[in-house]
Amino acid sequence: MTRILAISGSLRRDSMNTKLLRTAQTLVPEGVVVEFADLSSIPMFNQDVEAEGIPAAVQILKDQIAAADGVLIATPEYSRNIPGMLKNALDWVSRGPVRPLVGKPVAVVSASGSIYGGIRAQTELRQLLTHLSAGVLHSPEVAVGQATQKFNEQGEFIDEAGLRFYTTLLGNLLLKIELEQRLKALA
Amino acid sequence: MTRILAISGSLRRDSMNTKLLRTAQTLVPEGVVVEFADLSSIPMFNQDVEAEGIPAAVQILKDQIAAADGVLIATPEYSRNIPGMLKNALDWVSRGPVRPLVGKPVAVVSASGSIYGGIRAQTELRQLLTHLSAGVLHSPEVAVGQATQKFNEQGEFIDEAGLRFYTTLLGNLLLKIELEQRLKALA
Amino acid sequence: MTRILAISGSLRRDSMNTKLLRTAQTLVPEGVVVEFADLSSIPMFNQDVEAEGIPAAVQILKDQIAAADGVLIATPEYSRNIPGMLKNALDWVSRGPVRPLVGKPVAVVSASGSIYGGIRAQTELRQLLTHLSAGVLHSPEVAVGQATQKFNEQGEFIDEAGLRFYTTLLGNLLLKIELEQRLKALA
Amino acid sequence: MTRILAISGSLRRDSMNTKLLRTAQTLVPEGVVVEFADLSSIPMFNQDVEAEGIPAAVQILKDQIAAADGVLIATPEYSRNIPGMLKNALDWVSRGPVRPLVGKPVAVVSASGSIYGGIRAQTELRQLLTHLSAGVLHSPEVAVGQATQKFNEQGEFIDEAGLRFYTTLLGNLLLKIELEQRLKALA
Repeated sequence: MTRILAISGSLRRDSMNTKLLRTAQTLVPEGVVVEFADLSSIPMFNQDVEAEGIPAAVQILKDQIAAADGVLIATPEYSRNIPGMLKNALDWVSRGPVRPLVGKPVAVVSASGSIYGGIRAQTELRQLLTHLSAGVLHSPEVAVGQATQKFNEQGEFIDEAGLRFYTTLLGNLLLKIELEQRLKALA
Repeated sequence: MTRILAISGSLRRDSMNTKLLRTAQTLVPEGVVVEFADLSSIPMFNQDVEAEGIPAAVQILKDQIAAADGVLIATPEYSRNIPGMLKNALDWVSRGPVRPLVGKPVAVVSASGSIYGGIRAQTELRQLLTHLSAGVLHSPEVAVGQATQKFNEQGEFIDEAGLRFYTTLLGNLLLKIELEQRLKALA
Repeated sequence: MTRILAISGSLRRDSMNTKLLRTAQTLVPEGVVVEFADLSSIPMFNQDVEAEGIPAAVQILKDQIAAADGVLIATPEYSRNIPGMLKNALDWVSRGPVRPLVGKPVAVVSASGSIYGGIRAQTELRQLLTHLSAGVLHSPEVAVGQATQKFNEQGEFIDEAGLRFYTTLLGNLLLKIELEQRLKALA
Repeated sequence: MTRILAISGSLRRDSMNTKLLRTAQTLVPEGVVVEFADLSSIPMFNQDVEAEGIPAAVQILKDQIAAADGVLIATPEYSRNIPGMLKNALDWVSRGPVRPLVGKPVAVVSASGSIYGGIRAQTELRQLLTHLSAGVLHSPEVAVGQATQKFNEQGEFIDEAGLRFYTTLLGNLLLKIELEQRLKALA
């Protein structure tokens, strides 16, 4: 079984980015499970708090990333960049002796009401993840623009061209996971 | 009286960036007051929460910015960029019908243990503030590198060259505030 | 008479970005003239060359910018950023005692075959121009995606929604020029 | 024998960045040769020119990169980013069916008169190379600040701490080259 951890950059119940992540489950082959991280309880990073012990919600996130074979992140765009909420979660994850994102295969998508689909937030996120030594996939770029028109009432992503690119991206993520695992088996 | 609102990108009690902001009070002429914002109670941005009403801590921050003649922000650098905590506060401030940063004179400084002094976070912050239509000052750039050696036991910033540039930056901020006020009086 | 200097980030004869600039002439009111800069003879920046005297093509560009009331730049996107050719021209312009971009009203557009329309190159260009202290307009953002389908055989830009945004952008540029001129008259 | 191709982002005869590259030859073990690329004859990118055939100077650069085991780039910083001249060379290299930077181990350094040592240009360059699928090294970061004081009259880089980090970076580059070659031998 292959496990993908889905991380949404939005806390909104009805978030288009969260819906985009849910759609992933329908696009992957059997044997691949998409699980969800929950960022809603992660506190603001504060070194004084960290010194007293990593908060439970942060530890759970780190453990989930460590246990996953790959990560899929969907991000909204606020002011040309990712939400502070998502950056804050990654600030926590990038610290300490155990850094589960290092070398981890990660794919990034975005959705937005604008015609640019959050492509700039997505690009910034890819740069941040590269800096954190994650194994970021660079193509195809799935940035869903005018996204309010691209989900049905059941919250399913229904844009044909978008689904095609999304399926390719998920296929690339699974291939990267497989190749990494074969590399490790060699070592 | 001229009012400067100081915003620290760190919640740590002993933060070098917060100390850098405190030092500003000693560098400005009489009649200028440096007040402090408190980001510790600002929740993660969530559009569902926003729909129920702006949280009190966010409203206080927006009111403080609106009431200030200028803003001074000190930021740490996490992964080449500003902390998610600070971005999250600015995500809240940049939304809604009242946007108090628009046209507001803002100066940015940074401190970090590394030799580069957080210059990349500072540059990113300046770009973000420009995008939010704040009146960002672009020089001089005060990025305090190897900062652990540059504060005394009382927490005062004591680097001579750094103090010189910092004083110039604060002078530029006050000049910009004065010019903006004269422009408004003209209109 | 108001003079707009148009600068294309592409040297290609049939460039979509150059065509986009040509269309500007048809969208501005009478009394506004769109003139073209020629970057094709600007050499690679080299401080040894600069020390012997600014090359003629660079001097002409600087003089054209100085003489213009505003500048309109159209940029392709190469590897998420502006072409090196365009950056090189701006490297020359940003040096020396006379810096004609300082305070100059500037609007930025982009066209690209991709669906994102070069929005990332455009954003980078806006940041670069902000750093050079130009008076950059931030909205609306006109990034023409899938641009190969949006010009007719005469090379005219024919996308309806795009033309509407472009006209608004040019209107904003002319308004900014007018306000700057009234400010100067006050001083 | 291991071959490193050195690429300077400055055309100036007396360039500190070129000197930094020359110093590399003295820091690598026997059996490693540092060769130099020459960007001075590379024309501005123009798709019309490209359509008539890749210019000789570009072809030579592409061949040199293909023949090298690794690449070392030194960049000045102009307006927070790399020189247009260097970006233009990479614009050429990143096009066409043969893309010799893909997977190639690359290390980046910078030197500048400012105290920040060109760290922002270096960071932008690393992002650009990542986007071009090069195998970029992320640490240590060697950005030589106040560089005018750090070379002797023979043009040798003489800063002790800087030399230590530079030697580590070159060691990392050679290790990456070796590991890549062992991986290829496995396949």
